[in-house]
Amino acid sequence: MTTLKQLTAQDVEKHASRDSCWIIIHGNVYDVTEFLDDHPGGSKIILKYAGKDATEEYDPIHPPNAITTHLPKEKHLGPIDPNTVRKVVKEITVEEKARLERFKNRPPLSECLNLHDFEAVAQAVMPDKAWAYYSSAADDEITNRENHTAYHRIWFRPRILVDVTKVDWSTTILGQKSKMPLYITATALGKLGHPDGELNLTRGAAKHGVIQMIPTLASCSFDEIVDAAQPGQPQFLQLYVNKDREITKRYVQHAEKRGIKGLFITVDAPQLGRREKDMRMKFEDEGSEVQRQGSGVVDRSQGAARAISSFIDPGICWDDIPWFKSITKMPIILKGVQTWEDTVKAIDMGCQGVVLSNHGGRQLDFARSGIEVLVEVVDKLKELGRWPVPNFEIYVDGGVRRATDVLKAIALGATAVGVGRPFLYAFSAYGQDGVEHALEILHNEFEMNMRLLGARNLKEIVPEMVDTSSLRSHSGSVPDDRLYNVNYQSLKLASLRNIQEGAVAKSKL
Amino acid sequence: MTTLKQLTAQDVEKHASRDSCWIIIHGNVYDVTEFLDDHPGGSKIILKYAGKDATEEYDPIHPPNAITTHLPKEKHLGPIDPNTVRKVVKEITVEEKARLERFKNRPPLSECLNLHDFEAVAQAVMPDKAWAYYSSAADDEITNRENHTAYHRIWFRPRILVDVTKVDWSTTILGQKSKMPLYITATALGKLGHPDGELNLTRGAAKHGVIQMIPTLASCSFDEIVDAAQPGQPQFLQLYVNKDREITKRYVQHAEKRGIKGLFITVDAPQLGRREKDMRMKFEDEGSEVQRQGSGVVDRSQGAARAISSFIDPGICWDDIPWFKSITKMPIILKGVQTWEDTVKAIDMGCQGVVLSNHGGRQLDFARSGIEVLVEVVDKLKELGRWPVPNFEIYVDGGVRRATDVLKAIALGATAVGVGRPFLYAFSAYGQDGVEHALEILHNEFEMNMRLLGARNLKEIVPEMVDTSSLRSHSGSVPDDRLYNVNYQSLKLASLRNIQEGAVAKSKL
Amino acid sequence: MTTLKQLTAQDVEKHASRDSCWIIIHGNVYDVTEFLDDHPGGSKIILKYAGKDATEEYDPIHPPNAITTHLPKEKHLGPIDPNTVRKVVKEITVEEKARLERFKNRPPLSECLNLHDFEAVAQAVMPDKAWAYYSSAADDEITNRENHTAYHRIWFRPRILVDVTKVDWSTTILGQKSKMPLYITATALGKLGHPDGELNLTRGAAKHGVIQMIPTLASCSFDEIVDAAQPGQPQFLQLYVNKDREITKRYVQHAEKRGIKGLFITVDAPQLGRREKDMRMKFEDEGSEVQRQGSGVVDRSQGAARAISSFIDPGICWDDIPWFKSITKMPIILKGVQTWEDTVKAIDMGCQGVVLSNHGGRQLDFARSGIEVLVEVVDKLKELGRWPVPNFEIYVDGGVRRATDVLKAIALGATAVGVGRPFLYAFSAYGQDGVEHALEILHNEFEMNMRLLGARNLKEIVPEMVDTSSLRSHSGSVPDDRLYNVNYQSLKLASLRNIQEGAVAKSKL
Amino acid sequence: MTTLKQLTAQDVEKHASRDSCWIIIHGNVYDVTEFLDDHPGGSKIILKYAGKDATEEYDPIHPPNAITTHLPKEKHLGPIDPNTVRKVVKEITVEEKARLERFKNRPPLSECLNLHDFEAVAQAVMPDKAWAYYSSAADDEITNRENHTAYHRIWFRPRILVDVTKVDWSTTILGQKSKMPLYITATALGKLGHPDGELNLTRGAAKHGVIQMIPTLASCSFDEIVDAAQPGQPQFLQLYVNKDREITKRYVQHAEKRGIKGLFITVDAPQLGRREKDMRMKFEDEGSEVQRQGSGVVDRSQGAARAISSFIDPGICWDDIPWFKSITKMPIILKGVQTWEDTVKAIDMGCQGVVLSNHGGRQLDFARSGIEVLVEVVDKLKELGRWPVPNFEIYVDGGVRRATDVLKAIALGATAVGVGRPFLYAFSAYGQDGVEHALEILHNEFEMNMRLLGARNLKEIVPEMVDTSSLRSHSGSVPDDRLYNVNYQSLKLASLRNIQEGAVAKSKL
Repeated sequence: MTTLKQLTAQDVEKHASRDSCWIIIHGNVYDVTEFLDDHPGGSKIILKYAGKDATEEYDPIHPPNAITTHLPKEKHLGPIDPNTVRKVVKEITVEEKARLERFKNRPPLSECLNLHDFEAVAQAVMPDKAWAYYSSAADDEITNRENHTAYHRIWFRPRILVDVTKVDWSTTILGQKSKMPLYITATALGKLGHPDGELNLTRGAAKHGVIQMIPTLASCSFDEIVDAAQPGQPQFLQLYVNKDREITKRYVQHAEKRGIKGLFITVDAPQLGRREKDMRMKFEDEGSEVQRQGSGVVDRSQGAARAISSFIDPGICWDDIPWFKSITKMPIILKGVQTWEDTVKAIDMGCQGVVLSNHGGRQLDFARSGIEVLVEVVDKLKELGRWPVPNFEIYVDGGVRRATDVLKAIALGATAVGVGRPFLYAFSAYGQDGVEHALEILHNEFEMNMRLLGARNLKEIVPEMVDTSSLRSHSGSVPDDRLYNVNYQSLKLASLRNIQEGAVAKSKL
Repeated sequence: MTTLKQLTAQDVEKHASRDSCWIIIHGNVYDVTEFLDDHPGGSKIILKYAGKDATEEYDPIHPPNAITTHLPKEKHLGPIDPNTVRKVVKEITVEEKARLERFKNRPPLSECLNLHDFEAVAQAVMPDKAWAYYSSAADDEITNRENHTAYHRIWFRPRILVDVTKVDWSTTILGQKSKMPLYITATALGKLGHPDGELNLTRGAAKHGVIQMIPTLASCSFDEIVDAAQPGQPQFLQLYVNKDREITKRYVQHAEKRGIKGLFITVDAPQLGRREKDMRMKFEDEGSEVQRQGSGVVDRSQGAARAISSFIDPGICWDDIPWFKSITKMPIILKGVQTWEDTVKAIDMGCQGVVLSNHGGRQLDFARSGIEVLVEVVDKLKELGRWPVPNFEIYVDGGVRRATDVLKAIALGATAVGVGRPFLYAFSAYGQDGVEHALEILHNEFEMNMRLLGARNLKEIVPEMVDTSSLRSHSGSVPDDRLYNVNYQSLKLASLRNIQEGAVAKSKL
Repeated sequence: MTTLKQLTAQDVEKHASRDSCWIIIHGNVYDVTEFLDDHPGGSKIILKYAGKDATEEYDPIHPPNAITTHLPKEKHLGPIDPNTVRKVVKEITVEEKARLERFKNRPPLSECLNLHDFEAVAQAVMPDKAWAYYSSAADDEITNRENHTAYHRIWFRPRILVDVTKVDWSTTILGQKSKMPLYITATALGKLGHPDGELNLTRGAAKHGVIQMIPTLASCSFDEIVDAAQPGQPQFLQLYVNKDREITKRYVQHAEKRGIKGLFITVDAPQLGRREKDMRMKFEDEGSEVQRQGSGVVDRSQGAARAISSFIDPGICWDDIPWFKSITKMPIILKGVQTWEDTVKAIDMGCQGVVLSNHGGRQLDFARSGIEVLVEVVDKLKELGRWPVPNFEIYVDGGVRRATDVLKAIALGATAVGVGRPFLYAFSAYGQDGVEHALEILHNEFEMNMRLLGARNLKEIVPEMVDTSSLRSHSGSVPDDRLYNVNYQSLKLASLRNIQEGAVAKSKL
Repeated sequence: MTTLKQLTAQDVEKHASRDSCWIIIHGNVYDVTEFLDDHPGGSKIILKYAGKDATEEYDPIHPPNAITTHLPKEKHLGPIDPNTVRKVVKEITVEEKARLERFKNRPPLSECLNLHDFEAVAQAVMPDKAWAYYSSAADDEITNRENHTAYHRIWFRPRILVDVTKVDWSTTILGQKSKMPLYITATALGKLGHPDGELNLTRGAAKHGVIQMIPTLASCSFDEIVDAAQPGQPQFLQLYVNKDREITKRYVQHAEKRGIKGLFITVDAPQLGRREKDMRMKFEDEGSEVQRQGSGVVDRSQGAARAISSFIDPGICWDDIPWFKSITKMPIILKGVQTWEDTVKAIDMGCQGVVLSNHGGRQLDFARSGIEVLVEVVDKLKELGRWPVPNFEIYVDGGVRRATDVLKAIALGATAVGVGRPFLYAFSAYGQDGVEHALEILHNEFEMNMRLLGARNLKEIVPEMVDTSSLRSHSGSVPDDRLYNVNYQSLKLASLRNIQEGAVAKSKL
């Protein structure tokens, strides 16, 4: 490896156009002129930083080694002389100032009483783009909301007079101990919400004995995340399969070597979804002069999701499964299964599990919720005489906000439940402390609800404890009769009288 | 044909009363005195232009040759001397100014991310009357909204691990190639939204390889629309049957000669609907002095729909089908079928297809959505052992806003889906560019959703991919308990504290 | 009959206390001192007029002869000398002035496009108490709203290609011709809404060939209403049965003699309902000095309904039916039947019909809608092999606002439908013209919808034309998750930009 | 018993820190230093009163003898010299002043027309913390609201032409006469709402001949409540079982001796619920200086429920039932049963009844409503041939607001219904008068609705009178399509014109 000459900021500044475009990332200079049109996120965003340091923009949405991997060696021009780089005094907009003020005035962590609270705080204190990326979902976000709503169509049949002095909701997932029947599922771009990104999750998981699934599209590098784990702390890996299978093979085998306990292959995302909230966010950014020199038909419609996912192979298919089994001994779990037919196929092909999931509602709108598919799958397996399935576990994810949601899934046959966004919101608002507090809340909810269900351990959470008869019903209320409803004059309650100025009623009287 | 003497504006101005009423249309003078009471749109609107040039009002709601067809020859008084006509400086109202300002500030086309956006922009920038005519529907508009809502009761069962590198959603409709399983269905009065009217659709369809169905009630003449087509571009014709069958015969045979590929006979509109939003619009127009001289009981209750449709024959019946088959070799499709019984009848009488449709909710309120009827029809045909039906295609229309809606219909047995209002809104807001962009959006949605469903072509979109178990449910929530609900105090989220002036919370905290 | 001496206002004024209380009604003086505690509406309201003329308050809520009937002859003190009565200059409150201003600015009748419009106008222009009495219903008004909502769970299956040039929706009801399959049902206290009270209905019915059912609790006397009818105009009578059967007998036989064509005995109101909107209205009235002298525990909780109904017999039962048949030859119809069991009983006891009704939602809350009961009844009769029933007709009432509502009932086996409040609202807002315009609107809706259903007459409106599969479903949406829903950030549409002051967007952009 | 020396306020004031903490309760001084960490409500609240008189805070949330029972004798330091205690002039906050103003302006009792009204007034006039404690429920309060909503999915099938001159809705509950088929169920901490606490209920119950269930967690002592009863007035006892069974035994046997007629053992609360509205309330209280000295990690998350319930035994189980039977002859009823399985077990183990209840929605969210469980239980018992069950009664509670709710439960097999919160709200707003008026309202509703159902006594309220076919349906509407719905432009009603300033429309025109 030859040593490259150190460059100065002045050298770089000369290459600030479409015709010659250099940028600085992490102290190194790269010539990205020819790469402009291939950039998954479009050329525009790069041109904004032409001749400048792009690290800050680059960091949260790229794995650290993305540029060195994608750019031919000859385009690596060499290190920058740090003394020549002028510190850019970043202008803070009025909106950003207000956001920081809100951040400073977050409610104390102890006032977060449930997982909803983290989302509320995160929405108030996160940068808009980050919030949009995390919270957005496919099309009209029907599936996204249905994921949560579906749990509300399941009701409990709790048992009484069971001695619940001691209750235990720990379990094992793929043979790994977990203090709760849930795991932190893979979500991309952790640094959008917090500078420590996914490491918040690794550390929080360690403290509370739950398992983290590491995402392929993490902001932190895979090794950073593994390095942050405590000795013996189990971790899983979520995998997007690369068009170049060699890259995938290296990645998987590296993971196995580093001690990863389960390989969750995403199968519901041959192409990453159109998420309009995310896409709409891009239009607010007007762009700089250089960009306007560039192509007039800049594709401004790409949200973050597309920007980071062009390597994913839409060609992955069942024929690839034996190959995966040949390259690793890790248990293989298919993440994103949505029918009993594909579950049976996964069993028959020797997978160790499936995650019944629709990718948090971010892919196909009107995909059913994982919990609804779970009932279909288990009912069918029972009908086929194949339930329970040896050496095979079923997980669900999407929409979970309460321990009761988790316990419903357990009652219906799931081994554990994946929880994603709530933890993102927790660390975006409060860092690692937020993740820990979220887990403590769940701890308290589990203890309470195990007792109230009359179950001393998860084995006693049985199908008879839930009524799912309304689960499959997505009934459609008739569109309302607006004229009739406007005419209808609501009944009124008894009202206060002679209220003086200053004694404004708090109630609705 | 005798040549008529040229008239002057001064000649015409003398005939500006109920007793003698002349008007100018497209440079010719007509005596409409005796026609006043026969005018489908009422006499009032004509009297407003008595003695003046009525072309601007006439144009968008009449086929160009309407007046020459309906008025006896002797009432055609001759050409107007254009030099004598004073250019009327049209006063622009404050509202109209505001509308034009809004029009000028339309969002750039690239910010329209879905078909909903076009409707939003159109509603903001169209003249109120035009918007009312396009968007209005029958009675309480229950069916109109149900058309869209019904799709939301259908959920997907997508398959995974199918190699979807290449996906293809092209098809053939009545033997004609279409790049998507949809066609642009017939809608009336295109010039209300844009001066080029239906030509926007013809040209947009050509660019994207989809088929346009030409409406009988187009603002542009039939020949203008056909002339605007590219060589080889297939077009269909929608037909309202005239009380005078000879007119219909000439019209149909002319269409066949011009190369029309399918004749869609409207069967759900023996009388055009009462659309109250449209009707209410008329009352804002106070009328001029002349009108007040006229009959006091002017029928002000007629919307645009009635004004243009008095020729339609409510007597059309099954006995007419053989006659249609005798006058044309074009495939005959019945548009507006709503039961399996009538579908079977259509098959038995040798039709080539049906459109399961309720006329966009503009005719009978509480007619079911086309997609709901589709399930009834296909289920019955299967039960009768007559599915699939040779040489017979089924279409649905109404309520489509997403490619997923279309794919649900395909899964359930439709050959293609008709889309109407979204394209009207697209050209009303952006002209031909809007139509093209709408088709591009659908293109992107189809590509994404084919992949996410795990289907490489439309044949792989099978009934097992949808769950329609809630489709037929139009359940009625119990009317709400207003007193209870007012009393119920919603839970609150954790809240920001000490927020300073200027750091207004963006979220709901 | 002795002639009584004429009294002066000064004589009367002396009797203005609880101990001696005289009032003037229609020019006659009555001593009501001993009657105070028996007054169904409470003593308070009488004491307000002690020593004064009470006619204006008395009129709308009493049949004209109420006082002469209830008060012993010796309390009829004689005529008042009209010259001695000071014209009371009634003070008009600010609210009343505003109401009159609103009344003056009613929309022209032609702008009422549907029955909803009359309700909207009436609500704006009626006195509050009158509005409250007409619109109020039992308890939480669930049944009241369900009556309308239930129709929205029934959907059409219209037929096509039927020659509907001529459509006819006339019928016969109890052998009487009616131009529409509906009748104007009985509602009390017509003068609350308009000085001509029920006569508006009589006259409007005559013009449009429909039948009016005369209420026992009319503001106009029975004979006034019969006298107002055209020769040959059929009328029905609604009957509240008096505790004193002789009174009822005289009333019924008088009605028969006057040519009434059907006797509708109300069976769902052994006691008139608690209608809280009506009851709450009473509290606004502070009362005069005299009242305060009176009992401190005045029962202020009685709405108009109670005030007028104390004579009704809660003891009426099946055993009374033979007696009714013995005193009249008019067809006997039970109004307020709500189960198949009681329908069968009515048939077996020789009644000529039932009205499936819950009294407009004014009696038992959570009684089902008439249209829902209709399906139960007809299904059961079919099951019992007793359908159709000879010489027996079934009607429904409650919640009807559209001709489509009526046609649904016809399809399901009803002979006709009763419509009440919409006509009250029509004459309260516009007098007789309102009633006529309401009937014209229905005429237009019937014509349109008969055509769109593909039915040439009512016999062709068959059960197969409606889908009632969701009718019985009063499903309960799960209470909403308020925290989740507050957190969920709705998608946004494309938005206008740089909008100048004055170009306020009309749409929601 | 040794006599303790009288102390002075000055003595006490010296012990105002974590290291030495004395407080005054009811004129006695206690050293609670060592008890601080064991206090179920946390140390913080005690430290707020360190060195001071804590009686006012102590009273409403502790049974009077709580401190003497829990604190070792040697910590009872002796009586305080009342002359040394400075009267603390309590500062009244602006909010409290406004509340008192609202209280003063409560609507007159006669304007409360239904049970909803009491809740509305109570919400306006109660201190926030008290309101929060009474109204709060578990998690997202779904079950809490479902309790009421469930009744709305049950509809009546009333019978007609029954002689209902006399109607009687009295019954017996566990052999005790009750004038209505309901009892006042146990609810904690009555003094939060009114200084007389539970005595309001005792006295109101006596007046109207209904039975009160005395709560373990009453603010008044058990004996005070029993003493307040009229001779012969029956009372029940609700029991939380103490970890120390001896305490429970003494309590139960004392109750039996005092004449209690039924023992209702709570079985749905091994641990008292997390009620976030209650918990959130605590954060508003900033705390004093002393507290800040204390532990930084004060657990501020405990609402009132936890503070008072640490003695409850989560170990209570079926094996305890024989023991209960051995210590008392009172009928034993299990309160909080939620399945048919546990009902059958209760019967088999010789209990005299069950209350199908979910603790007012305050424990397990998504527990089903009592009325829904009632149908499950009775259906199963019928299926097992065990219905009716001799010497065994079934009650339900939760969500009742109307006599119709009660009658639905009776029709479905319940002996009586428990009503809780409405009576709390009634006395919080109006003291004993409120309780009585609430019972009068129910009286009126029962009379009316018995008549309207056509039932002369409770035996005639039969299962055939209700339609429960929708009861079990907790269907989920599909999440709404926000973009579509925002675009949809509602129909408008006819509108008033030229309205002058001052004639503001009351309606929505």
